[in-house]
Amino acid sequence: MGELADTIGKLKKVSTATIATCLFKKGLKNQFIQEVKPLKPGKPTMVGEAFTLRYIPAREDLNPIEVFKNPRHLQRVAVEECPKGAVLVIDSRKDARAASAGSILATRLMVRGVAGMVTDGGFRDSAEIADLDMPSYHHRPSAPTNLTLHQAIAVNEPIACGDVAVFPEDIIVGDDDGVMVIPAHLADEVANECLDITLFEAFVIQQVQNGKSIVGLYPLTDAAVQKEFEAWKGQNSKSS
Amino acid sequence: MGELADTIGKLKKVSTATIATCLFKKGLKNQFIQEVKPLKPGKPTMVGEAFTLRYIPAREDLNPIEVFKNPRHLQRVAVEECPKGAVLVIDSRKDARAASAGSILATRLMVRGVAGMVTDGGFRDSAEIADLDMPSYHHRPSAPTNLTLHQAIAVNEPIACGDVAVFPEDIIVGDDDGVMVIPAHLADEVANECLDITLFEAFVIQQVQNGKSIVGLYPLTDAAVQKEFEAWKGQNSKSS
Amino acid sequence: MGELADTIGKLKKVSTATIATCLFKKGLKNQFIQEVKPLKPGKPTMVGEAFTLRYIPAREDLNPIEVFKNPRHLQRVAVEECPKGAVLVIDSRKDARAASAGSILATRLMVRGVAGMVTDGGFRDSAEIADLDMPSYHHRPSAPTNLTLHQAIAVNEPIACGDVAVFPEDIIVGDDDGVMVIPAHLADEVANECLDITLFEAFVIQQVQNGKSIVGLYPLTDAAVQKEFEAWKGQNSKSS
Amino acid sequence: MGELADTIGKLKKVSTATIATCLFKKGLKNQFIQEVKPLKPGKPTMVGEAFTLRYIPAREDLNPIEVFKNPRHLQRVAVEECPKGAVLVIDSRKDARAASAGSILATRLMVRGVAGMVTDGGFRDSAEIADLDMPSYHHRPSAPTNLTLHQAIAVNEPIACGDVAVFPEDIIVGDDDGVMVIPAHLADEVANECLDITLFEAFVIQQVQNGKSIVGLYPLTDAAVQKEFEAWKGQNSKSS
Amino acid sequence: MGELADTIGKLKKVSTATIATCLFKKGLKNQFIQEVKPLKPGKPTMVGEAFTLRYIPAREDLNPIEVFKNPRHLQRVAVEECPKGAVLVIDSRKDARAASAGSILATRLMVRGVAGMVTDGGFRDSAEIADLDMPSYHHRPSAPTNLTLHQAIAVNEPIACGDVAVFPEDIIVGDDDGVMVIPAHLADEVANECLDITLFEAFVIQQVQNGKSIVGLYPLTDAAVQKEFEAWKGQNSKSS
Amino acid sequence: MGELADTIGKLKKVSTATIATCLFKKGLKNQFIQEVKPLKPGKPTMVGEAFTLRYIPAREDLNPIEVFKNPRHLQRVAVEECPKGAVLVIDSRKDARAASAGSILATRLMVRGVAGMVTDGGFRDSAEIADLDMPSYHHRPSAPTNLTLHQAIAVNEPIACGDVAVFPEDIIVGDDDGVMVIPAHLADEVANECLDITLFEAFVIQQVQNGKSIVGLYPLTDAAVQKEFEAWKGQNSKSS
Repeated sequence: MGELADTIGKLKKVSTATIATCLFKKGLKNQFIQEVKPLKPGKPTMVGEAFTLRYIPAREDLNPIEVFKNPRHLQRVAVEECPKGAVLVIDSRKDARAASAGSILATRLMVRGVAGMVTDGGFRDSAEIADLDMPSYHHRPSAPTNLTLHQAIAVNEPIACGDVAVFPEDIIVGDDDGVMVIPAHLADEVANECLDITLFEAFVIQQVQNGKSIVGLYPLTDAAVQKEFEAWKGQNSKSS
Repeated sequence: MGELADTIGKLKKVSTATIATCLFKKGLKNQFIQEVKPLKPGKPTMVGEAFTLRYIPAREDLNPIEVFKNPRHLQRVAVEECPKGAVLVIDSRKDARAASAGSILATRLMVRGVAGMVTDGGFRDSAEIADLDMPSYHHRPSAPTNLTLHQAIAVNEPIACGDVAVFPEDIIVGDDDGVMVIPAHLADEVANECLDITLFEAFVIQQVQNGKSIVGLYPLTDAAVQKEFEAWKGQNSKSS
Repeated sequence: MGELADTIGKLKKVSTATIATCLFKKGLKNQFIQEVKPLKPGKPTMVGEAFTLRYIPAREDLNPIEVFKNPRHLQRVAVEECPKGAVLVIDSRKDARAASAGSILATRLMVRGVAGMVTDGGFRDSAEIADLDMPSYHHRPSAPTNLTLHQAIAVNEPIACGDVAVFPEDIIVGDDDGVMVIPAHLADEVANECLDITLFEAFVIQQVQNGKSIVGLYPLTDAAVQKEFEAWKGQNSKSS
Repeated sequence: MGELADTIGKLKKVSTATIATCLFKKGLKNQFIQEVKPLKPGKPTMVGEAFTLRYIPAREDLNPIEVFKNPRHLQRVAVEECPKGAVLVIDSRKDARAASAGSILATRLMVRGVAGMVTDGGFRDSAEIADLDMPSYHHRPSAPTNLTLHQAIAVNEPIACGDVAVFPEDIIVGDDDGVMVIPAHLADEVANECLDITLFEAFVIQQVQNGKSIVGLYPLTDAAVQKEFEAWKGQNSKSS
Repeated sequence: MGELADTIGKLKKVSTATIATCLFKKGLKNQFIQEVKPLKPGKPTMVGEAFTLRYIPAREDLNPIEVFKNPRHLQRVAVEECPKGAVLVIDSRKDARAASAGSILATRLMVRGVAGMVTDGGFRDSAEIADLDMPSYHHRPSAPTNLTLHQAIAVNEPIACGDVAVFPEDIIVGDDDGVMVIPAHLADEVANECLDITLFEAFVIQQVQNGKSIVGLYPLTDAAVQKEFEAWKGQNSKSS
Repeated sequence: MGELADTIGKLKKVSTATIATCLFKKGLKNQFIQEVKPLKPGKPTMVGEAFTLRYIPAREDLNPIEVFKNPRHLQRVAVEECPKGAVLVIDSRKDARAASAGSILATRLMVRGVAGMVTDGGFRDSAEIADLDMPSYHHRPSAPTNLTLHQAIAVNEPIACGDVAVFPEDIIVGDDDGVMVIPAHLADEVANECLDITLFEAFVIQQVQNGKSIVGLYPLTDAAVQKEFEAWKGQNSKSS
């Protein structure tokens, strides 16, 4: 199994909250895409490399409906070229007054094996997209065609999405809390650290459910609890 | 079957996204009521003529709880006079800090055969309204009585709702993406065009699910695909 | 049964909308916490005395991850000291860009018998918190650790939450519409009045479902309907 | 001198802050038009009866540039019919992305003897309007023609302006703090009370400048200071 | 005189309001950069070709203070390469919480002969920049260094600025109302049409100041007034 | 001269922009109070220790106008107890819909020798406060009395102001860009470093005005320029 696939496999087992804390410790405090949510909560965790699409405001003369007849229209290019396993991340300037994309393009992405899609704007045909076998994240549903307010201007450049910098090949992770952006060079390190934290947090939750106070337990400062955890870990780490 | 009923029947089969694109082509780019959502997604598409209610900010001396004892209080007038089959659209100035209405009025509207209700503010008793057999759209739930911030000032005037102009008798269509406003004189034309587009999009989605690229297909610029569509249409248009 | 428990028992049967109208009549028009919603709708009504936690913006040097090792860190103090049956209300300055708390602390609160928690920011691990057997309210999910933007600075002081003043021991009531704050000295009076209104509204809804106009009925100004209600009340008040 | 002219004369001598406190005491807490400011501070206080203009969002087909050729276009009607001495108050739905009016209409209003104009949107040609011999208030300058986003739909109806209800003939008062709306029936009473408060505040400021503590002085609870004030008033009230 | 210089010369005589109306007639309704204002009003009209700089959110590890030691840091590249006579337009994602630039870079731009600068964020050292002999436009002053929130990522790409598309070489015009963006290919046509409108508006203002109604005059629909204007134009057009 | 006075003396000579960069280097990136501005630009730099006042939302029954008769009302306590030379910083929850204070209290603060005042809300009587011989900062003018929306709840606690943590005795510095908060323990170190940077920036501006490129100069990476600066510093540092 390749290294990236391995990292992705690990990240599928951890939460965006855990990743956020891990990156916080490394001095990266602004990697959570603000104000986006899953179109349908409860799907498996979305993980993949970022492939980006940048929109600027639509100028009316450049954005009649006919532009879509151009097979090289950048929105369609993005949909056809986003790599299998990647996540399409769209910079919609946090403007959900018109759609970033709709169900036909989303279906095409799904069929092509794309891991998910994220916009800091909105998607149209949101009920259909929600039901696809691919996770998607946006700010809110939006019926108007993207030409109303957005012009696709560049593919796979560094972009802003929800007040976060997204560079191509950063690792994008999404769950019900929202979407985190992990800088490419840190992804494997973060994945490993987060697996460990996730294991510890499973122990903590179990202890808390059993009536334990969080003092000394979370964070772990009590040596006796440390020992208990080591024992518990021996029994549980294989299964995670 | 009357003409309006016919138009409404067609619009029940199309999506707000399709209507938005259709109106975009006609130069109408601002007909999507911004920032409203269904209280309960997944209901049948809401379609009906607009019947409007306009609120202004409540002045304390004019809005004690006693005003509701007046049988001609305009909020209640709107609820009793909104025609069967129409949609009550409320201009709440995008202010959801107090309710636009609650479950008793909503139930009365439903019993009277009203097709749905929309506010760019919020409804109270939102769980009860969500469960009614009538679709409703708002920005977010809001417990305070409407007198807290809203005074009903006029019935069936042209209003603003969610940054869109709504004229009485415009056709209002709502689905899970939100709510579109179709100018009355365009409604039948839009309904017909949207039925056609909807048929085509069903074909496109099927093709995409089968692995077809969107290039040449959406929009349809490839002559061979055009032929396929014509054949498909022969088989499928009756059923739609 | 103690007086507070009695009041709480009554308030569990009434809605935030009813409470809002009751307080409106008493001149209190700003007791609805704005812009918060339940992590999972449909839970039983949350009722309890307010126990507060105040955050200020995090200064980086005062908020490294190590601060949590301090067993007297105020966030943890709040979680361990919030009384059984109380509601933890957090002043997060309406800033949901980082979490107010996560699932471990929420689980600890639940295990300790706390009645619920409210923040005008966001919770992380929101899917887990939603599934707890304790209601929680926030603005939106937020993965980043609270240290990113929040420093716990005081426990059980008067605070602002969602533009509402919350004093320790005020009674907090939450349902699907959101959260109301009842001043402590009014709680029993409000509970009693709301029980009466709730009974009346059940009657009204039944009448409206049977096709009755709201004029004369809601509010009740028609003497004949008044009589019907008295009769109905005789039959129904025991069961409520 | 007529009664209205007399009231207006008094109100020219008092501040919007004093009026706000006076109305607060009468239970009117929401009469300050939010988020508007003078185009040029330092002009004499603006006072006049409200004459209103209501905008709704512009629908493209109804708002080509040609509509202005209609001499009954409501924006122009408002400008030609706003009475001498009145204040034109425009409901622009707090949307300053396009202008509410420009310098030609403003100049016409000035020449016609109008006392001022207020929008909760923006004016274009703002430098020219600022230099007119008539006060104007808006949110911010905005170059686009009003047809871009606004359609004049009604003249002299009750409106919302900056989250305040404005009824025709309410008295509008503007100074550097912004704009207050006094309900018509209270105007003379408010004018008289404010003149008294203004006199008292002049005394207080003088005392404070002389080193007096505000305790006992503001509000006046110290009997000795009360006497001083009575003496001071005898000397100063004529001149005010 | 070159063609561009000629166009620029004409545009210096017209207002952004006039340009906005001219572009509105051509179907371009979104060319006004929203929410920016001059640091010092009253300067001569700013006109020049757009030279753009694009920021994305700053990631902490990529933006320590040391990055400025790199002579190819893109912010400095933009400042050194922005052509004489051009306007530097910065896409700061409407985020003024940190500065887009400060007085040293602004002074360098001025010395290099740049015509002005615009950001939809904020400038630091705003008092010094205001006093330079070069116009600048921003949302509000902001002391923090741009590295706090912004990373310069590209020079002279198409960008968004204040919700408007800005393409390199578009013509930027700024006065006290704010900033308009004229598509490059329309600039000379717009300049000529605006000169004509400006002349007409000077006539209108004069007429209005003389007591003329706007009906028939603005827009000009009265044949007699048309003649007067022709005569007036003969006398005044040379001097404009 | 005492140590604090010495630090304050130095800080009066430096800008908020310079302080922001200095704190950025130390890892403090969020010390600029967002969205406040001077009531009158161009006053000398405001410097002083923070003395804080915290507001929560006003509950109507606790905030009738009579509360001011209580000499221990906390707003008045703050005004009478804020130390000479300190800056009164008010947490108004970024809500400028009602005033944080007015000209009488401001005048009292000035007479008492207070160095300035800051609110993240608004002041009333803003023209009078602007003209005082004491700098003040707010979001925007606001006529309504503070009781409308604010209740003073605590004096000299740690607070939030404009999204920044302010601890009593932090050093507050304000100029035309806005207001910086320097943690108390860093104040003298920051003052010294900023004096040095200020001297260097004066050299840079002079060089840039003389036509020098910023490359190698700002930041200083060119050894020859380093030498020039050393020489220049010898000549200029005394006078600064």
